[in-house]
Amino acid sequence: MTIAPDPAVLHGMPLFAGLDAAALADVVRQARTARIPKGAQIFAQGDEGAGGHALIDGRVKIVQTGAEGQQVVIRFIGPGEMFGTLAMFMGGVYPAGAVAVADCVEIRWTPAAMTALMERHPRIALNALGIIGGRLAEVQDRLRELSTQRVERRIAHALLRLVRQAGRRVEAGVEIGFPLSRQDLAEMTGTTLHTVSRTLSAWEAQGLVESGRQHVVIRKPHALVAIAEDLPPASR
Amino acid sequence: MTIAPDPAVLHGMPLFAGLDAAALADVVRQARTARIPKGAQIFAQGDEGAGGHALIDGRVKIVQTGAEGQQVVIRFIGPGEMFGTLAMFMGGVYPAGAVAVADCVEIRWTPAAMTALMERHPRIALNALGIIGGRLAEVQDRLRELSTQRVERRIAHALLRLVRQAGRRVEAGVEIGFPLSRQDLAEMTGTTLHTVSRTLSAWEAQGLVESGRQHVVIRKPHALVAIAEDLPPASR
Repeated sequence: MTIAPDPAVLHGMPLFAGLDAAALADVVRQARTARIPKGAQIFAQGDEGAGGHALIDGRVKIVQTGAEGQQVVIRFIGPGEMFGTLAMFMGGVYPAGAVAVADCVEIRWTPAAMTALMERHPRIALNALGIIGGRLAEVQDRLRELSTQRVERRIAHALLRLVRQAGRRVEAGVEIGFPLSRQDLAEMTGTTLHTVSRTLSAWEAQGLVESGRQHVVIRKPHALVAIAEDLPPASR
Repeated sequence: MTIAPDPAVLHGMPLFAGLDAAALADVVRQARTARIPKGAQIFAQGDEGAGGHALIDGRVKIVQTGAEGQQVVIRFIGPGEMFGTLAMFMGGVYPAGAVAVADCVEIRWTPAAMTALMERHPRIALNALGIIGGRLAEVQDRLRELSTQRVERRIAHALLRLVRQAGRRVEAGVEIGFPLSRQDLAEMTGTTLHTVSRTLSAWEAQGLVESGRQHVVIRKPHALVAIAEDLPPASR
């Protein structure tokens, strides 16, 4: 289902920060929105790409699959964030797939419309550079972690990134605000489901986290930071 | 040493592709060039950043160091490529360091100058998005390789990327056209110097590569592709 968007949906999106009302009206005139039910694929790796997507509501998982079927979770996208934009620069083809992990509303632009918008309003291109630059820095961090850190620290880093991105205070601590499986965590940290399960069980026994099916609560964020940063046990 | 650049140095740089002569003249007016001797540091991780660097001549290694001193080689930059640009989007601080691995000439812009250039000439911002987008896709590929592939394949992938980037035909095969140590390869593939040495020695015994101190020649690129893609030995 495709509907014409209301300009108010762009409010607070980093991609459109600093634009005036006339520019925002121009941006929505070129856009279409769509509702995507939980579990549906928004686009597949290798599909021909749109010029850009931004999430209005819901949560999207970006997954890359290797030639032999091995999956890596690239990131989770939350409300207000852009996604799928790399296709514009990768021969028009999505380098990874996107799946709705909650009911979603997205807004999208064709490649020609997004390019023309960036030329008319260079601030959009500068904003996009900041966003993609930040993601490049984050993936470089993950590469360094994966190259040099043992698995327990990588899982702690991945959980802390998710807390920063989508944490919400609950009575027991900080909850990661969307469905997150142990398999997702394994595919985010380059390890196996078995190792993630063993690590989370040990942390549960120590009272650091609480996890159920597709549900994680960090009870002691400071202790998780100590693991991620490899601080001596005394300071945990 | 800082000298005013000649507009001809921008020719063929992807960052400035599609600009007319007036725009190129504007770009060089805002720039400064500098010579950097082999072995010198151009900037350190954590230093306050410039708005952008582009390499006119030479070769630069971008290295990220973790809190405990573990290093990861992010990439090698060749003539015509931009580097150091992420600082503009990371609180003004370089997220990685840059070392000249050959005598270099670079051209650079302040953050204010680069932002103003992108606003006056949105094509520069769109070009930068394409470049940073391509690098993000490449680091995502490396993350997937590191998560899911055994070390021999990762070393083969790293060498093939360097061949695409800086390979030159020589009598014995394809030479990687800049000084590359086994330690560099270890820091590009998340493994140890010992493992890289053992792997290269095995490949040398099979006649696939030839390597000396800071020097690698691929004698049989197709055989290396077969290893990288995990094709059955029969087809090697």
